[in-house]
Amino acid sequence: MALSEREIIELLKKELSLPAAFEDAEAIPFKGTQLIVTTDMLSEGDDFPLGTPHYAMGWIASAANISDLGARGANPLGFLMSWGIPALAEQQIREIARGIRECADFHGTKCIGGDMNQTEKINLCGTAFGWTDKPLSRSGAREGDAIAVTGPLGATAAAYLTRWNRLEGYDGLLARFDRPIARLDLMQELNSKGLVNAAIDDSDGFAPSVHGICSESRKGALLRFEDVPIFNGVGEFAEKEKKDLLYLINMGNDYEMFMTIAEENFEEAKKVAKKHGCGLSGVGRITSGKVLIERDGKTEELPAKGFAHFSV
Amino acid sequence: MALSEREIIELLKKELSLPAAFEDAEAIPFKGTQLIVTTDMLSEGDDFPLGTPHYAMGWIASAANISDLGARGANPLGFLMSWGIPALAEQQIREIARGIRECADFHGTKCIGGDMNQTEKINLCGTAFGWTDKPLSRSGAREGDAIAVTGPLGATAAAYLTRWNRLEGYDGLLARFDRPIARLDLMQELNSKGLVNAAIDDSDGFAPSVHGICSESRKGALLRFEDVPIFNGVGEFAEKEKKDLLYLINMGNDYEMFMTIAEENFEEAKKVAKKHGCGLSGVGRITSGKVLIERDGKTEELPAKGFAHFSV
Repeated sequence: MALSEREIIELLKKELSLPAAFEDAEAIPFKGTQLIVTTDMLSEGDDFPLGTPHYAMGWIASAANISDLGARGANPLGFLMSWGIPALAEQQIREIARGIRECADFHGTKCIGGDMNQTEKINLCGTAFGWTDKPLSRSGAREGDAIAVTGPLGATAAAYLTRWNRLEGYDGLLARFDRPIARLDLMQELNSKGLVNAAIDDSDGFAPSVHGICSESRKGALLRFEDVPIFNGVGEFAEKEKKDLLYLINMGNDYEMFMTIAEENFEEAKKVAKKHGCGLSGVGRITSGKVLIERDGKTEELPAKGFAHFSV
Repeated sequence: MALSEREIIELLKKELSLPAAFEDAEAIPFKGTQLIVTTDMLSEGDDFPLGTPHYAMGWIASAANISDLGARGANPLGFLMSWGIPALAEQQIREIARGIRECADFHGTKCIGGDMNQTEKINLCGTAFGWTDKPLSRSGAREGDAIAVTGPLGATAAAYLTRWNRLEGYDGLLARFDRPIARLDLMQELNSKGLVNAAIDDSDGFAPSVHGICSESRKGALLRFEDVPIFNGVGEFAEKEKKDLLYLINMGNDYEMFMTIAEENFEEAKKVAKKHGCGLSGVGRITSGKVLIERDGKTEELPAKGFAHFSV
C-alpha cells in the first residue's frame, strides 16, 4: 500500500526533524530578521497538462514560488529555477524563459540563476527567497476572525480538466490557468500594516487551505459556500461537465490567498486589496469548534481532503 | 539541431538578464553581507544510474548543493529539498530521507523543508542557502597562482560507468560514489583566512573546471597531468575497461574543489586542508596564455569539454 502525500510528508518531518508546523515557506532567523525560503517543483502531466504552452510553464512555475513568499508576507529577494527538460527546440526554451522573466517582472522580482538538466519530461523546480521581520503564519487565526479570500476560485481546476479531457469552448479559463497572478505585493502591505492574523495560499485547494489554517491555529471555522467567489465561467463549466463546484475549488492552485482578519481590520484590509486590484471576500468566520460549511441551507463538516499527489 | 547545455545556458543568461559570469552559486547583497544561494537537480538515469541505493540519492543530492556553497566559501544556513518521486515503498522514502539527514549532519547543516511531487522517475532538486561577507569567485585567479585540488579524482566516473554497464569488482569506487564529501568547512576556513584567489567545484569535470576559472579570470594555465591525484583503483579501472584517465576525470562530480592560491599562501593552505582531513595537490599554475597541459612529455592545449547534458 503506497503512502499518501500527507503520510509521506509526516514521515519526512520526523525523519528530517523538520518543524512540525506546516507553512507555505520556511523562515530562517538571520541578521535580526527572517529569511523566507520556499521551493516548488512543477512537472508535465501533474501540473502542466498536455497543451499547456511553454510560456505558461515558465510563468506558472515562477508564480507558484512567488505565491508562497506572499503567504508569509515577505519582501522578495529573487528566485532560482532548476530546469529538467528533454531536448526541446530553441523556441520552446525561449518561451519557458520568457514566461519566467515576465512573471518575475510582473511581481517585481527576478530570476537570478538556476541549474540545467536533461530529463524525459519537463520539470521546473523553483526556489524563492525573501525576508520579513514578522512572517505571516498559518497558525495565527483567532476566534471571531473573518476568513477572506483574495479572488474567485475554480478556474485552474476547470482549465486543467479542459486540457486533460481535451474539452473545447473554455478559452477564458485556459487563459487564467496560463498566467496566474500571485498576491505578493498585497500580502506584503497587509503584513506590514498588521492587518492579517493567519494566511495560506490556495495551492492545496479550498478545504485543505481552510483546514490548514484551522489545524495550525487549533481553531475551527464556519464557512458559507454561497459566499465563496467563483471564477467567471466555472459555474457553467461545472454544470455542463457535471462537476461539483466544491470538487473544483478543492483542486486548488488558483494562486489566491486565504487569510483571517480581525473584524475591526476587515474594512481597511479591503481598501488595501482594492488598491492592489483585487477583492477580499469574506467566506466565513473562525470558531472554536469544527470546520463546518453551510451549503443549500444545511450545515455540515467540511472534509479536509483536496487534491493530493499519490492519491490515485 | 538541439542546443548544447552550454548554448542553452548562454541563451537563458540573455533571456533572463542573468549575471554574465558563471559561478557555482549566486550572491545576493543583503543586510551588509552576501546571501549565497544555489540549486541543483539530480535525476534517476543522468545522475543516479540503475543500482544507486536510495540512501545514496538523498546523500548525493544534498552534497551537490552543499558543495556549491563551499565553492563560494559560504557559511551554511540550511537547504530545501524538492522531491519528485513515483509511488515508492515507505522504506525507500525513509532511505532517501536518511541520506539527506546524514549528509546534512555530516556537513554541519540541515534540511529545513521542501516540496513533494509525483513524477515518473526520481528527481531530487535541492536549494542551499548560506552567507559570507566576501564570496569566493571563479574570477579571482592571478598569474603565478598555484592551481590546487582537494582530493583524488575519477571515482565518480568509474563508479557511474560500473553501474551503467553493470560491471563487477569495483565496490570501493561505488562506495565513494554513494557518499561524496563536500569541502564546505575547508572552504569556509580558507576563505575567512583569505588564502584562496579563485575557486570552483569539480562538478563539470577537470578540464571544464580549470577552464571555468581561467575564462572567468581571463587567464590561462599550465597543468601537469601527472600531478593530478587519481582515486585509488581508478587507474586499474581505466586500464581494464580501456578508458582514458582524462576522459574519466572530465566527467566530474567528485565533489572536490579546484582553487588557485598565491605561492606565498600555499603552505598555510595545505595546513588548513590537513586539519580538515584532506590534501591539497598542486596540479599547475595560472599563466597569461592558453590552458595547456603537459602529459607524457608533450604540452598541448586542454580542450574545455567535459560532461554536458544534451551532448548525446
